[in-house]
Amino acid sequence: MKKIGIALMGLGTVGGGTYRILTANKDYIRKVQGVDLEIMHILERDMTKVEALGVDPAIVSTDVANIVNNKDIKIVAEFFGGIEPARSFLIAVLKAGKSVVTANKELVAKHWSDLEAAAKEGGAGLYFEASCMGGVPVIRTLTEGMQGNHVQSIMGIFNGTTNYILTKMADEGLEYADVLKEAQRLGYAEANPSADVDGFDSMYKLSILSSLCFHKRVPIDKIYREGISKISKQDIEFGKQFGFTLKLLAIGKLVDGKIEARVHPAFVPDEHPLAGVKGSFNACFIVGDNVGDIMLYGRGAGDLPTGSAIVSDIVYCAKQTEHRYCPFDNSAAGVRDEDFAANFESEYYVRMTVADKSGVLAKIAGVFAKYGVSINSLQQTAEDGKASLLFMIHKTGENNLNQAIAEINSLNEVVAVDAVIRVM
Amino acid sequence: MKKIGIALMGLGTVGGGTYRILTANKDYIRKVQGVDLEIMHILERDMTKVEALGVDPAIVSTDVANIVNNKDIKIVAEFFGGIEPARSFLIAVLKAGKSVVTANKELVAKHWSDLEAAAKEGGAGLYFEASCMGGVPVIRTLTEGMQGNHVQSIMGIFNGTTNYILTKMADEGLEYADVLKEAQRLGYAEANPSADVDGFDSMYKLSILSSLCFHKRVPIDKIYREGISKISKQDIEFGKQFGFTLKLLAIGKLVDGKIEARVHPAFVPDEHPLAGVKGSFNACFIVGDNVGDIMLYGRGAGDLPTGSAIVSDIVYCAKQTEHRYCPFDNSAAGVRDEDFAANFESEYYVRMTVADKSGVLAKIAGVFAKYGVSINSLQQTAEDGKASLLFMIHKTGENNLNQAIAEINSLNEVVAVDAVIRVM
Repeated sequence: MKKIGIALMGLGTVGGGTYRILTANKDYIRKVQGVDLEIMHILERDMTKVEALGVDPAIVSTDVANIVNNKDIKIVAEFFGGIEPARSFLIAVLKAGKSVVTANKELVAKHWSDLEAAAKEGGAGLYFEASCMGGVPVIRTLTEGMQGNHVQSIMGIFNGTTNYILTKMADEGLEYADVLKEAQRLGYAEANPSADVDGFDSMYKLSILSSLCFHKRVPIDKIYREGISKISKQDIEFGKQFGFTLKLLAIGKLVDGKIEARVHPAFVPDEHPLAGVKGSFNACFIVGDNVGDIMLYGRGAGDLPTGSAIVSDIVYCAKQTEHRYCPFDNSAAGVRDEDFAANFESEYYVRMTVADKSGVLAKIAGVFAKYGVSINSLQQTAEDGKASLLFMIHKTGENNLNQAIAEINSLNEVVAVDAVIRVM
Repeated sequence: MKKIGIALMGLGTVGGGTYRILTANKDYIRKVQGVDLEIMHILERDMTKVEALGVDPAIVSTDVANIVNNKDIKIVAEFFGGIEPARSFLIAVLKAGKSVVTANKELVAKHWSDLEAAAKEGGAGLYFEASCMGGVPVIRTLTEGMQGNHVQSIMGIFNGTTNYILTKMADEGLEYADVLKEAQRLGYAEANPSADVDGFDSMYKLSILSSLCFHKRVPIDKIYREGISKISKQDIEFGKQFGFTLKLLAIGKLVDGKIEARVHPAFVPDEHPLAGVKGSFNACFIVGDNVGDIMLYGRGAGDLPTGSAIVSDIVYCAKQTEHRYCPFDNSAAGVRDEDFAANFESEYYVRMTVADKSGVLAKIAGVFAKYGVSINSLQQTAEDGKASLLFMIHKTGENNLNQAIAEINSLNEVVAVDAVIRVM
């Protein structure tokens, strides 16, 4: 039986989960998968973690040379997160011919081509199923389950923290700041929540997945990004009345042969399968030209779910006789501006507060018309000399809408444009 | 580049879809997948199908020897359906060293071990992603995406026809017979609908998938099977009041180390993701010990969706340097009675019509109590001297419930037990 030496870089949440899965399932994986995985070295400086997991301290160090120089180690799983030292360490092990398995979406999104160049140089493999949607095999679905399709679009709820916050706001009628505070207290959100709530995490995942969908590198600077911190419970409530659920969506699609990639809050029609994805669950809705609509759903984070994807990649990697590389140029040189849409179209929900006097609506409607923005419906409520206007806007170009909104915002009669939310 | 000769057996719905995908995407598959697939022979007797697809008649015949004896043909995709001649033809090509890709769930469910023995003999591969859930890569998810998990349960809506019928009954308040008639008129159901409505199709798929989940052969004679033909719109309506949606579920699960496998109508709580799977869509809810809950959703049938899975298997197969076989004994010898549960537990919905007089309920309750069946709730309505009783039963063993129902049915005061439906 093929005996494969494994190294783990880091024993944090997912590293620890991976350690537990690999040790508990060693015999099971031997029997069912026909590979004998042996953890030969672990990089970790926190010995309390080492002890808590019952790891033999003799295989623990902080020196990557102990991995690079061990010829029996064939696969290295990385759990440091962030860019450095993960990047340098992984490039070193890849060049030494050891395959890499990682959940590090930021690293892959930003340095995929460097890692892959090192992998090619070393004849090693680079696997990152765990970087997107935790234990849900979305990358395997794209690469091993949809080969006969041109993917037309991918739409995902890729961040559990923001989906937990939005679900709680919707179900319990709470404001963003209050839910965030509670999520932080419970450990569902980081002390600095920006990576989640500002959409960076979703953006990294969309960069990776949309590149695989469209066979072109979709770098993060080509992705429009907007977070959820400005969402109010009021807008979630209004959305419900229109039959919409608010989600932080990551969207990649081909429109007239150009790639559109964006992360932003969006109203999802209640009857769409993504609307029913609640709490910290993730989901991904993919449209292929032959298979039609597919959805994958599951836990996008956590020690064991993400560890499950890491172990899947380790077993998958261990069975390969030859590693495959990107079938497209994933370096900066492969990114051509003309492959990306400069503008994109959506329907919109727009809420604004204006002075409650005659002529205001006519002025606003005039500005929309000036930019070719067509109003689908309007709902008006007045109170204390102010009126709240709620527009549903027909499909329109982003640029036109933004110009209209800027001009409306500058009108004396307009107190504020409170919310501009895209409809899926 | 690896050049791979392909043969197709049959140009029906899925065979035709596969032909179209392979020809339209030949260059795309070369470029992205690095394999050059060439259709070298097709078995088809209906020349109108050959002409309609624009196939060169020179590569069409009805003689399997034209495939067996062509050493350039490496992969054979089968679309005959049913057992013979598919079985004999596939065994012949497998023994000749040609890998087989098939959507034929009945054949795989019944003759998997024969096919695999022939595959081993010929050093060929056997792939059947397309046999379950059409274009949704559920087999790849189990075999290549969950290797670090012990699967605990799989629950699926695997048959689009019955899900279409049940959705229509629920949404439009129609009776089974009327919806079936319309479905037949529209071509969504066969003239002889038994394979779908009696649960055979779901049973074949459950046999294949639960075998892969539990690494033990789950033959069809170990699967309890009950169809949807006795479902009335009344029960669907009552279910709604309790917050349930009725689905034909295929369930495989491990209970105390024993496999429970069953196909039957079941009430699914509305908040469960499977409840929202409407119309002809399929879905599969899998629980792994590490990954937790996963759901896959998509079109389970149709020329292009199923063709997509066939092409996925062809590409997957073409890239293998060595074919893998079942890690468990999938022959009849591998089936041990003690691996399967003899009884299983469910909550139940029971509706009956009884004489509307005093003492009847006490008698019925007495029978339930005699068999240890515990009543969760009861709803009674009376009309024309008859009463309708609607029981929700706490979790109980199937055997006990059946004995109680038989005895209740034999009571003079009981007109009929109208419905006994499990709750998921």
